[in-house]
Amino acid sequence: MPSVFSATDIEAVNTIRCLAADTVQGANSGHPGAPMGCAPMAHILYSKFINGNPKNPDWINRDRFVLSNGHACALQYVTLHLMGYDITIDDLKKFRQLHSKYVLHSTLLPYSLFLFLIFSFFFIPIYLYPNFSSSPNHRTPGHPERMETPGIEVTTGPLGQGIANAVGLAMAEKHLAATFNTNDFKVFDNTVYCITGDGCLQEGVASEASSLAGHMKLGNLIVLYDANKIQIDGSTDLAFTEDVLARYESYGWHTQTVENGDSDFDSLYKAIADAKLVTDKPSLIKVHTTIGFGSAKQGTEKVHGAPLGDADIANVKTLFHFDPSLKYHVGQNVYDLYKATADAGSQKEAEWNQMMLKYQQAHPDLYSEFDRRFNKKELPTDWVKNLPTFSPSDAPVATRKLSEGIINAIAPNMPEFLGGSADLTGSNLTYWKTAGEFQHPSYDFGDYSGRYIRYGVREHAMAAISNGLAAYGGLVPFASTFLNFISYAVGASRLSALQQLQVIYIMTHDSIGLGEDGPTHQPIETLSMLRATPNTVVLRPADGNETSASYLSALSYKDRPSVICLTRQNLPQLQGSSIESALKGGYVLQDVPNPDLILIGTGSEVSICVDTAKVLSSEGINCRVVSMPSFEIFDEQPEEYRKQVLPNGIPRISVEAMSTSSWYKYAHHPIGIDTFGASGKIDDLYNYFGLTPSKIAEKARSVVQFYKTNPVPVIEKLW
Amino acid sequence: MPSVFSATDIEAVNTIRCLAADTVQGANSGHPGAPMGCAPMAHILYSKFINGNPKNPDWINRDRFVLSNGHACALQYVTLHLMGYDITIDDLKKFRQLHSKYVLHSTLLPYSLFLFLIFSFFFIPIYLYPNFSSSPNHRTPGHPERMETPGIEVTTGPLGQGIANAVGLAMAEKHLAATFNTNDFKVFDNTVYCITGDGCLQEGVASEASSLAGHMKLGNLIVLYDANKIQIDGSTDLAFTEDVLARYESYGWHTQTVENGDSDFDSLYKAIADAKLVTDKPSLIKVHTTIGFGSAKQGTEKVHGAPLGDADIANVKTLFHFDPSLKYHVGQNVYDLYKATADAGSQKEAEWNQMMLKYQQAHPDLYSEFDRRFNKKELPTDWVKNLPTFSPSDAPVATRKLSEGIINAIAPNMPEFLGGSADLTGSNLTYWKTAGEFQHPSYDFGDYSGRYIRYGVREHAMAAISNGLAAYGGLVPFASTFLNFISYAVGASRLSALQQLQVIYIMTHDSIGLGEDGPTHQPIETLSMLRATPNTVVLRPADGNETSASYLSALSYKDRPSVICLTRQNLPQLQGSSIESALKGGYVLQDVPNPDLILIGTGSEVSICVDTAKVLSSEGINCRVVSMPSFEIFDEQPEEYRKQVLPNGIPRISVEAMSTSSWYKYAHHPIGIDTFGASGKIDDLYNYFGLTPSKIAEKARSVVQFYKTNPVPVIEKLW
Repeated sequence: MPSVFSATDIEAVNTIRCLAADTVQGANSGHPGAPMGCAPMAHILYSKFINGNPKNPDWINRDRFVLSNGHACALQYVTLHLMGYDITIDDLKKFRQLHSKYVLHSTLLPYSLFLFLIFSFFFIPIYLYPNFSSSPNHRTPGHPERMETPGIEVTTGPLGQGIANAVGLAMAEKHLAATFNTNDFKVFDNTVYCITGDGCLQEGVASEASSLAGHMKLGNLIVLYDANKIQIDGSTDLAFTEDVLARYESYGWHTQTVENGDSDFDSLYKAIADAKLVTDKPSLIKVHTTIGFGSAKQGTEKVHGAPLGDADIANVKTLFHFDPSLKYHVGQNVYDLYKATADAGSQKEAEWNQMMLKYQQAHPDLYSEFDRRFNKKELPTDWVKNLPTFSPSDAPVATRKLSEGIINAIAPNMPEFLGGSADLTGSNLTYWKTAGEFQHPSYDFGDYSGRYIRYGVREHAMAAISNGLAAYGGLVPFASTFLNFISYAVGASRLSALQQLQVIYIMTHDSIGLGEDGPTHQPIETLSMLRATPNTVVLRPADGNETSASYLSALSYKDRPSVICLTRQNLPQLQGSSIESALKGGYVLQDVPNPDLILIGTGSEVSICVDTAKVLSSEGINCRVVSMPSFEIFDEQPEEYRKQVLPNGIPRISVEAMSTSSWYKYAHHPIGIDTFGASGKIDDLYNYFGLTPSKIAEKARSVVQFYKTNPVPVIEKLW
Repeated sequence: MPSVFSATDIEAVNTIRCLAADTVQGANSGHPGAPMGCAPMAHILYSKFINGNPKNPDWINRDRFVLSNGHACALQYVTLHLMGYDITIDDLKKFRQLHSKYVLHSTLLPYSLFLFLIFSFFFIPIYLYPNFSSSPNHRTPGHPERMETPGIEVTTGPLGQGIANAVGLAMAEKHLAATFNTNDFKVFDNTVYCITGDGCLQEGVASEASSLAGHMKLGNLIVLYDANKIQIDGSTDLAFTEDVLARYESYGWHTQTVENGDSDFDSLYKAIADAKLVTDKPSLIKVHTTIGFGSAKQGTEKVHGAPLGDADIANVKTLFHFDPSLKYHVGQNVYDLYKATADAGSQKEAEWNQMMLKYQQAHPDLYSEFDRRFNKKELPTDWVKNLPTFSPSDAPVATRKLSEGIINAIAPNMPEFLGGSADLTGSNLTYWKTAGEFQHPSYDFGDYSGRYIRYGVREHAMAAISNGLAAYGGLVPFASTFLNFISYAVGASRLSALQQLQVIYIMTHDSIGLGEDGPTHQPIETLSMLRATPNTVVLRPADGNETSASYLSALSYKDRPSVICLTRQNLPQLQGSSIESALKGGYVLQDVPNPDLILIGTGSEVSICVDTAKVLSSEGINCRVVSMPSFEIFDEQPEEYRKQVLPNGIPRISVEAMSTSSWYKYAHHPIGIDTFGASGKIDDLYNYFGLTPSKIAEKARSVVQFYKTNPVPVIEKLW
């Protein structure tokens, strides 16, 4: 077979190496080694394989590329620049530097939803205000960030996340292809490429995701493993001597090895081309490379995380027959090579667009659905009307059970909603009757059009895969386990928030109320952690109406994850609750004239607050009860509204069956659990931890008494 | 080979099955399926292999047993009861129930340390008061808990933790054997046994730990894999079709299969015996079993997590030729069988004790060290005097660098201190010159006596293994990575706290101060999470003296983990800091008469507070500066002291470069970062996020102005 490579390809690869070295040197910070070692992979992928249009990085059927070893991002920025993406040489010169001002982007709820609410609730004012999240205006941050740079599909850097995201991107493509493709039209047929280093492959999240990818037979996923034998501590012999390819074969992957990834471009090309032919297995290609190829310190950990220095870079350039006096230099023939590739990508998109016109005519219903999800980016009309409402005469129900009802009510008509549980389906109650199993069609129990994903006991991968599903577009993924076990997945769930991805975490068994499973399963610190995580909405509904409101919120926020916290135990339907009130994050559930005390609760503790208010009322202490399903949404309401709910001058007690640490922001006296939980029957536990109406009332009496003779503190951030 | 099993063994196995079913039924909650399937494994392990003395569950050289699938704990409680551990039939009848009252146990600092401090600091009062942690008085909680039940080595239940703990226990044994054994004396020669289910093997933490165990060639670790083909969602075919044995072979493990784990006791016995002969590889034995063996619903997920029901249990007993009318019944011959085993275990301990008398004579120095660490459980005398102290004229140094100095000062004379980094040694600066590499001796760069562990990029396993190292005894393990990446390990670090294990988390790069790596690496929510986690001490030192104090605290708390948060960037040595002050958790660093404002900072923000105070002082606003390295320790000081530091009536501003959410407990106006961070130079970032003296001073002026005409709120939990 004649080589597909010319001398210009060699020059292009060496240009990537030098440009990456210059970029890191210019920042005086960063990682030159991996970009120099991976330059052949990146060049071959971008110039010969990846279908994409640099002028429209959002083309829906583009191939996806993930740099799982995100610290090597100089590689990605340089290559994207060469391809003609909107990254300039000046951007490369500002690598890892803070640029300038904030960019505000709003997350207004869809207009249609707003109108619906206005009309259906008779002009009750709705305080769903825009969320202004802020972002430093970067093109070339220290690790690749989805929201900052065109051509970056997912934010990587924390090791193992990228390859797990790639699994999610590949699952998304398989699902959408099964949903929208027809015999004549391949609306979705893209490939997901990923480069990963040794580090990612040591991470548990990568193991979990790779095992699932093998099970799911994701033939559209090709991972190139940069096997350079070096990690930060030195040789991988220190800690990583497993047989990686044998492991991936055990997962059901197709594997290959390229012995010389530094200069044997033909073998690298052939391996990728061969991997594309394998349609029923994901592929791992182990590529032996030399970290920092060309540097005097190549092949050592010294080139991993620090600039090479001007002298070494000059030597590298001399070695490659470049002019060592030129920095950030690209030969015109190299630009021309990439321009030809970019033009071919642009042409491919044009052909796809042409095809879509015919698709629209041939399959108007399918196209209409496609258009709604990918172009208009709207939820189905009228979905909100399927949300159930409740009145106090309705039976007590666990909020996880209410959630099941909502899912069954809305999911059949919301085809973008897909997801699953980390092997707790019967406990999380996240399955719905018409979901269908997302499985490879060779299994007899599902196919890729299915919307229920069996994640197995893989919480971290579930969250990271959900990020990939959400990043692909056109999907609203959910992920479910017990609330406490989001602690296994925080490495990924914080990246949902950082990447502004709409992932809905449906977390059941949300307190000691789970009972007998005990302290290993009972969340204590969990909500403090989630509430402190930027751009994350925590929702802990108290009854049916609030559960409906939680889904309404979570499904409406397009650019942030939500965590819906649900009970195992039954809760009564509360007098005073409503969807529209709960949408404000916090509201007056039950009131009295001139209250002596405000009791604030969330979730299962709101009805305890109501009962406590009754106890106190019988002795002449009048209580307002505030339900606060979401701090974040409440904090976004206008100040006037917030002061109506929590006016100054009245003492406040909060009640929540976990750590009190996040409550000092609202309450003068937070009541909760600041130790670990215990194993026992639910009533015994609530009594043991002091969360009964009579025990709370006892404390409340002291609080009220104290503030009769002391000024009630103003608690709020003043400026 | 004649069978080693008699009819009584069969009866014993079926007794375990029925007793477990009765136990779960009695609780009306729990998991009968796995105990019934794993009964043969448990019986054979306990009655034929495990060396242990039920009358002294703390015998140092006992074999360790870990039930990684902790939900199957009825199996463990029942078997421990039969063996004669202090678990009665009445305890089994109280399975999963809350018992009664709190037990208080103090964590007084060692007396010697107290004396040292008193004398060395000339009677400056030291407020290191006992920590009263509380625990419900359980024997048989819903998942096995190390602190509750004799014979339980580690707390399991969150899947994947147990097998990773077992790797830590095996590493501990290897290290201690290499340290204390001689040609004539095998002080440590125990085996670590573990039972795990499908669920654990799907978890990333198990993958990480197993890969490292293979690399470390832990021949003392034998894992029995209960392969029952069922998980909660149904068949493992839904999500877990990988070849598990091939995967473990790729890690370097020895593997075997037992086809019939329900009744082929001889094969099971032989497999375990063969595994014991493999001394240079950990062993995985895949045991095919039937979940819920004997139940009408055996082999299905229906027997996983709910009681069988009385009728089914009666049928099970009839099937086993037991009297179905007898509940919690054990035949005397079964008790006799286990008594013989227990007596043999007791005899083994007696022989070991005899051997230790000879060891003491033959190797008095070794014995003395053994005695200090395992019997007296004291740190080396005088270690505290090696902690460096600093004065303001000393150079600015990063606290991670100061930590390196401390480690190098104390580790050489503190042989129980061992640990490592998740492949960030050169950044965490946790290596010391005389550490030695913990590695299998066949590698040419270390042996098991080494105290530096190369964890690879495996944060979650590092924390879980550290729990195993600490649970073994005689060791003080540390684990290190960037602070933000504790989010990968929280599933295990919260179990350090729940199990009251002394694990020292040395977490560097503790804020946006890490600079260019950007928001994927910058902690924001992290300290809020850790501070909300019960029994966890967070330490964020501001300079050299505080760093020394942090190590003094962390090394002194025997029954809780500490997280020491350290900077990448240099910090000045502060006027007013001292070890003894920092040991109080919070103290007045710099003061003025009649302050108008209190500025509270931690870590790198304390010196910013000092500079802010200077700015404000120049305009007539007088500030007290409080350094607050640890909330938890400060909260444990006497009220009188706390009120001296933070008196009522003076407004307080806190400054910490991350989420403000945990600060409302102390500050009227917390200043921090409630968005994600950014990539850039450190000075640019501090300016961008408003954390410069001039920007803080601007806010401070408004705060002071406001409280001139408003009462200053009392912030504290009143009752």
